[in-house]
Amino acid sequence: MDDLKYKQKMQRRKEVQEQRLAERNQEKGLIIINTGNGKGKTTAALGMVMRSLGHGYKVAIIQFIKGAWEPAEKAVLGRWEGQLEFHAMGEGFTWETQDQARDTEKAIAAWEKALEYITNPEYRLVLLDEVNIALKLGYLDVKTVIAGLEQKPEDSHVILTGRGAPKELIEKADLVTEMTLVKHPFKEQGVKAQAGIEF
Amino acid sequence: MDDLKYKQKMQRRKEVQEQRLAERNQEKGLIIINTGNGKGKTTAALGMVMRSLGHGYKVAIIQFIKGAWEPAEKAVLGRWEGQLEFHAMGEGFTWETQDQARDTEKAIAAWEKALEYITNPEYRLVLLDEVNIALKLGYLDVKTVIAGLEQKPEDSHVILTGRGAPKELIEKADLVTEMTLVKHPFKEQGVKAQAGIEF
Repeated sequence: MDDLKYKQKMQRRKEVQEQRLAERNQEKGLIIINTGNGKGKTTAALGMVMRSLGHGYKVAIIQFIKGAWEPAEKAVLGRWEGQLEFHAMGEGFTWETQDQARDTEKAIAAWEKALEYITNPEYRLVLLDEVNIALKLGYLDVKTVIAGLEQKPEDSHVILTGRGAPKELIEKADLVTEMTLVKHPFKEQGVKAQAGIEF
Repeated sequence: MDDLKYKQKMQRRKEVQEQRLAERNQEKGLIIINTGNGKGKTTAALGMVMRSLGHGYKVAIIQFIKGAWEPAEKAVLGRWEGQLEFHAMGEGFTWETQDQARDTEKAIAAWEKALEYITNPEYRLVLLDEVNIALKLGYLDVKTVIAGLEQKPEDSHVILTGRGAPKELIEKADLVTEMTLVKHPFKEQGVKAQAGIEF
């Protein structure tokens, strides 16, 4: 492409971009879903947690399936004591416990804790990590979760992660991303989970 | 599902899971690509940066397209001075500059800086943010990038983000995730970029 054409092309792109930005002027708290079978659902949510912390906002994380904070995440996020609340309500992966009544009880307790933060206007971002799994396994009812999301203050964000997000939840959400696996070293090369990548 | 069936189902899942973990025993530095038109490509990479920092690893971030660190990211990642190196080599989005020769020059300089970190065994994770855009726009040659990736130490990870990752790069990578847009408030509701979410 010659220089003049390049300049013209980039000029047009700039105009389109500026027009788009001018049209988008609504401030709105978002219901965000990261779903799909690929990697990056929780990791992308953690990136948003990090950004919100950087803005000085209060953030709450509720883990629905895992039973503890990963040490590396704790080493980083633990620095925001007072600004970040963390609750791990699950107890290891569900196949560790093998007790349906107990798993359901834990999930409901996690949801009740989550609802406190969702309805609290001091918290600008609430991350419900792996909540979609709890919905999928029937530990939580999607209607209950949607009713809770309807109570959130207008300018706060809620992120819901986990594969298999139910349709009703997707309909309710503002921003939905599906992470799709294109290539995965675990499956194809027998590579184990890597520090700094998976945990 | 009755209690016994549930217990049996979860027991089987546990066995499958344990067998899988036993089969996956290879430690390996990964070439990771986050691509696609959806959100979360850079955000998921930042989540991995955070985990690596939590493990005490040295990390380098090279931004190929954006010209500066977002203030919120800086407020968080700036706390890891000495452990995290950051270079923003672009100069605003490309449609701001409208000068092909200059854009190419910047991208090549960014790549040269990146290569220093990629080949340095002290750095366990190198994030080449939006490098796929630089490849797509022809500022960088994919062969050059692949030749560089081949020089990385065995146990270090490189993450390449941006839509439109070239095929040759995908073939070379270990872990490739495509972020697909299911629903986006910018497009559908005129919502502007939100602090804590987009930046």
